[in-house]
Amino acid sequence: MATIRDVAKHAGVSVATVSRMINGTGYVHEDTRRNIETAIKELQYTPNEVARSLYKKKSKLTGLLLPDITNPFFPELARGVEDEMQENDYRIIFGNSDEDRDKEQDYIQTFVQNNVVGVIASTNSPDTDTYRKLAIPVVFLDRTADDSPSVYSDGREGGRIAAREMIARGSRRVTVMQGPKHVRPAQDRFKGAVEMLKEQGIDYNVVQTSSFSFTDAGTWAEQLFRQYPDTDGVIASNDIVAAAVLHEALKLGKKVPEEVQIIGYDDVPLSGILNPALTTIRQPAYDMGRAAARLLIAFIENKPIEQSTLQMPVTFTERDTTRKAEQ
Amino acid sequence: MATIRDVAKHAGVSVATVSRMINGTGYVHEDTRRNIETAIKELQYTPNEVARSLYKKKSKLTGLLLPDITNPFFPELARGVEDEMQENDYRIIFGNSDEDRDKEQDYIQTFVQNNVVGVIASTNSPDTDTYRKLAIPVVFLDRTADDSPSVYSDGREGGRIAAREMIARGSRRVTVMQGPKHVRPAQDRFKGAVEMLKEQGIDYNVVQTSSFSFTDAGTWAEQLFRQYPDTDGVIASNDIVAAAVLHEALKLGKKVPEEVQIIGYDDVPLSGILNPALTTIRQPAYDMGRAAARLLIAFIENKPIEQSTLQMPVTFTERDTTRKAEQ
Repeated sequence: MATIRDVAKHAGVSVATVSRMINGTGYVHEDTRRNIETAIKELQYTPNEVARSLYKKKSKLTGLLLPDITNPFFPELARGVEDEMQENDYRIIFGNSDEDRDKEQDYIQTFVQNNVVGVIASTNSPDTDTYRKLAIPVVFLDRTADDSPSVYSDGREGGRIAAREMIARGSRRVTVMQGPKHVRPAQDRFKGAVEMLKEQGIDYNVVQTSSFSFTDAGTWAEQLFRQYPDTDGVIASNDIVAAAVLHEALKLGKKVPEEVQIIGYDDVPLSGILNPALTTIRQPAYDMGRAAARLLIAFIENKPIEQSTLQMPVTFTERDTTRKAEQ
Repeated sequence: MATIRDVAKHAGVSVATVSRMINGTGYVHEDTRRNIETAIKELQYTPNEVARSLYKKKSKLTGLLLPDITNPFFPELARGVEDEMQENDYRIIFGNSDEDRDKEQDYIQTFVQNNVVGVIASTNSPDTDTYRKLAIPVVFLDRTADDSPSVYSDGREGGRIAAREMIARGSRRVTVMQGPKHVRPAQDRFKGAVEMLKEQGIDYNVVQTSSFSFTDAGTWAEQLFRQYPDTDGVIASNDIVAAAVLHEALKLGKKVPEEVQIIGYDDVPLSGILNPALTTIRQPAYDMGRAAARLLIAFIENKPIEQSTLQMPVTFTERDTTRKAEQ
C-alpha cells in the first residue's frame, strides 16, 4: 500500500506539504495541489485516518453501547443509529454491556482510548463519573438522565395505555409482569400500568422477572399460570415475555383472547407474525436510533440544537391477543 | 486530560522514556519505572491508543461486516464475535452491508483507514479485490471462499436434511422456498433440498423470494398458498419466512402439521415460542461467531492454526410444525 512518503516523492514535494493538503491545515499552491492529487490517484493512496486523527485531534469513530444485541428490540435501535451514522460518514465501535457496570466502564474507556468523537449509550447508570467525566458528547438512548441529552420513549404512558386498553376490553383479574428491577424503562412501564390499574380499581397481581432472555421467559410464563391460574389479562414486560406467555397459555388450552388477553411491549418485528398476532405497545426503535445519532452528530459538529431531550411517542398496536373494546 | 508530556514532566524523564515503558519497546530502569507509574497514577493518565497504534503499527480494533443486524440470525452471530473479541481485549467497528457491493467496499475501506488489525465479513463477494488486496487477516463468516479462512455451516446438508425429514413425515406435494439468488448460503440449502426431493422422486414446486425481511415474508406466504393451495409441506428459506408461512396457513384454516408441515432454517430464538413451535434446521450461530473471532485473533497474533476453514454441523430440530416420522 502507498504511504504519504510515496505520494510526496511521486509529486516532488515534502511530506509536510502533502499532509497540509490532506488535512486542510495550511496553504498549498494550486499547481502543487494538482500534482499531489495526481500522485494520490496514480498510487491509489488512502490517507491513514489514524494519522489524520492525531493532526486533527479527532476521528470519525463513535461508540455505541447497548445492553444486548440479541434482545430483538436492540437490533432495530442499532440499525437506526448505524444508518444515520453511515450516511454522515461516521463509523461505530460497538459493544454489549449486559447491564454490567464493569463491562460498561471498560467499553467507555476503550472507546475514549480509540479517540471516538462521541458516544451513544443505553445505560442504567447515566449519572456516574463514567459519563460525567467524558470530554466528548454523549447521548443516552432508550434511557433518560437529568439534563443530559437523551432519546427515549414515554414508558410510563406506555404502561398506562396497556392497562387502560386491557380494562376497556374487559379483563378484571390482571397480572402485570414486572421487568428487571435495574432496567429503568422496564420500571417506568410497570409503574404506569400499576398506576392505571389502581386508578380504575382493578384487581391485579405482579410476577417479578429478572431478564428479557428467551430461555428465562418460558419459565416465568409457566410460573405465572401456576400462581394465578384464573388471570384473565397479562401485561407483559416486553414482547419476548408476551410471546412466551402466549405460548404457555395455548399449551394449557386457554383461549386467547377469549379467556386471557395479552399485551406486549416494544412491537419487535416478530410480534406481527405470532399466532394469534400480538397486541402490543409500540416504541419507534429504529426512529429512536436515528434521532440519537442525529443529535450526537449535531453536538460533534457544533450545529444548532433545538432540543437535546427527545421523548418519542408510544402507540397502542391492536392485533389479535386482545378482544374488541367495549363501547 | 493528562498527556504523555505531562507524565514525563511530572516524573522528570523524557517523553521517549515514558513511551518506551508504556509500549514495552526498550529498557527502563526500575526506579524510573516507579516514578513514571506514580506520575501516571497521580495524573490519571490513559495512554492514547491511537498514538500507541502508530508506535506499535497496530491497534486493537477489528472490523465486522454483516448483511443486516435486524435479520434475527445475525445478532447471535455478532454476539458470538463480540464476546470472543471482548474477552481478548479487541474492539469491533461494526457495519451493515445490506448485501450492497458499494456499501461493503466503503466499509472495508474505512475499516482499513481506521487501522483495524483484522476483518470478519459475511459477504457474497469474497473473491474480489476488496478482500484480496487487504494486507490484514480476513475471516469470512457464514460464507465460504476458495482457500480463504472461513467459518460456515453445511448449507447443502441442511437442505438435504430438511427435505429428507419432510418426506419421512409423509409430505408428497412439497413447496421449496428459494432464498435470495445472490445470497450463497440460501442457495446452498435450496440446492440440497431440491437434490434430495429429486433423489426420492417427490413432486415439488418452487417459490422464489428476494429478501429475508419480515414485511416481504408475509407477501410470499400469501403467494405460496395462492399458487399451490394443495401443498402439504413447505421448506422455508429461513425461520422468518417459515413463521410467515405458518401464520398464513393458520389464517387460511389449514391444520399444522396435520395438513401442512413446515420446516424453517436457522433456529433463531423466536422459533421455539411460535405456536405451534417451529421445526427447523439449526445453525450454531453464536458458536460460529465465536469461532470466527478466535480464528481471526490467531491470525493477528501469529498463533499456530490447525484449520483455517471450519464447517460447523447443522442439526434437525424437531418441534411441532412437523408430524412424527413414519417407521
